[in-house]
Amino acid sequence: MADVGDLVGRARDGEPRAVARLISLVEDAHPRLREVAAALTPYTGNAQVVGLTGPPGVGKSTSTSMLLTALRAEGRRVGVLAIDPSSPFSGGALLGDRIRMGEHATDPGVFIRSMATRGHLGGLAWATPQAVRVLDAAGFDVVLIETVGVGQSEVDVVRLADTTVVLLAPGMGDGIQAAKAGVLEIADVFVVNKADRDGADVTVRELEQLVSMTRREVRGRSWRQPVVRTVAAEGKGADAVVRALAGHRAWLEEHGELRRRRVARASGEVEAVAVQRLRAELGELRGGERLAQLAEAVVGRELDPYAAADALVAELRRG
Amino acid sequence: MADVGDLVGRARDGEPRAVARLISLVEDAHPRLREVAAALTPYTGNAQVVGLTGPPGVGKSTSTSMLLTALRAEGRRVGVLAIDPSSPFSGGALLGDRIRMGEHATDPGVFIRSMATRGHLGGLAWATPQAVRVLDAAGFDVVLIETVGVGQSEVDVVRLADTTVVLLAPGMGDGIQAAKAGVLEIADVFVVNKADRDGADVTVRELEQLVSMTRREVRGRSWRQPVVRTVAAEGKGADAVVRALAGHRAWLEEHGELRRRRVARASGEVEAVAVQRLRAELGELRGGERLAQLAEAVVGRELDPYAAADALVAELRRG
Repeated sequence: MADVGDLVGRARDGEPRAVARLISLVEDAHPRLREVAAALTPYTGNAQVVGLTGPPGVGKSTSTSMLLTALRAEGRRVGVLAIDPSSPFSGGALLGDRIRMGEHATDPGVFIRSMATRGHLGGLAWATPQAVRVLDAAGFDVVLIETVGVGQSEVDVVRLADTTVVLLAPGMGDGIQAAKAGVLEIADVFVVNKADRDGADVTVRELEQLVSMTRREVRGRSWRQPVVRTVAAEGKGADAVVRALAGHRAWLEEHGELRRRRVARASGEVEAVAVQRLRAELGELRGGERLAQLAEAVVGRELDPYAAADALVAELRRG
Repeated sequence: MADVGDLVGRARDGEPRAVARLISLVEDAHPRLREVAAALTPYTGNAQVVGLTGPPGVGKSTSTSMLLTALRAEGRRVGVLAIDPSSPFSGGALLGDRIRMGEHATDPGVFIRSMATRGHLGGLAWATPQAVRVLDAAGFDVVLIETVGVGQSEVDVVRLADTTVVLLAPGMGDGIQAAKAGVLEIADVFVVNKADRDGADVTVRELEQLVSMTRREVRGRSWRQPVVRTVAAEGKGADAVVRALAGHRAWLEEHGELRRRRVARASGEVEAVAVQRLRAELGELRGGERLAQLAEAVVGRELDPYAAADALVAELRRG
């Protein structure tokens, strides 16, 4: 591997291959990640982190592309992390989305990366905050975390953002259902895409009613989630989304909430790194044999899983 | 809470409420789980654990219902764990599936439980093997773990089974894609449901070609995954699926593979219990303040996440 300081320098100079290499180190849980993290730290804390989620078919990649165009028009550099849930049944779909974002492929102010989760030890909770850290340190003004809202773990990742955008579309039966299922809880901004279709007014009205019923309070000050209409395929509504993001960002700063969210993100990151280390140590006890021995005892009904875990943790403590 | 021994006794006597209560204790990570696990252990190791997965729309709940009918006709008691990925966008879908299984609702030889994962500390990896243990100890001959194949974590859970059934349907473009994306890797039995539809022959042929190319070897002996046709809505093909399950079970036993899979499952279970305990201890350091303090230092660029994790782990070791 190249010198870590050099790699970070080249990433900060805007060299996409250096950025890509750093994110690969994160995904592979490379032994030199510790060094990488230390080298990145002085440059972090500047990017605005935006999460984007919604059900399949709502137009997420078109919306991301529209948002990229609008942010680039303001001269802002944008990094995109597309979280690929890696279902064995949907493999490759997101890759197709990336290709459709081809218009941004040659823009040095845009960096797009699909993050696969398959087989990853610590999963998304481990890799995503560290990848955000890479893009932040590399000088991207905005980091978009995009994920299809199919599983809790994917949604949890989007919640790592400073601002979370939930995309919905008319006629998907998502208005009331969304509220039931907790989407309101994670959304800072609602976007109703395909707003030229039948039913858009109903969806917007339902969301606005829900927002007015459930407005959130933070230290006595509430944020009323805006409901923005877009037709992403035609680029309509992009400015309104950018304004909503700026508005929420200003609100976060004014109320000390930005700091609070970033501490929560860092807390998850530190915990994931610590837990991964402890998990690796459990696996390595007695030359990697101890966990299998205890599992044998559980299958043989000599131990229950809690007693086996007690033995494992006790040995970890003894070192 | 009632006496644990009494609860386990009533579950073994076939009382559905006692079984349900025990699974709730698992889902809630109840403090007395340790006691529960110890009381269950002598009765475990008898159930055949079958995983069932497939893409949305393939007919999973109809297939599960068909399989229930067929297994009940042989006098076998069946417990079903339906893993609900708890997407905020799909909440409630599985509950609907459960209601559609109404024909089995009054059968004391059937127990059906949806397991939600939302907000669960250790997630599916923690709760599912323990819920299997409950059903196993309660005397169910077969435990079906059913999940929609939308995320890696759901698929990982199905892999906990002795035998994994992958459901596909004609015309979903899943033949070749499935191979690419690793479905072959997890399937012990393929079921092509809706086999009366156009394209069923193509799907079956593609799967059979893929199977013949990628036959798995276990200590020099290979298992050739059967490809079974069903029309679950009409109950067609149920016997062939039951035969395929029995065939795989016999193969597992003959080659020592059943034991190996069960040790792998127990290993995941013990590791999940140990990791959850360590995670809880990390969160409790210095009265629950230490992780937040370190996260503050990371946001303030005084520490990188690895250095913060070092500090956290070192304090854990000191106790």
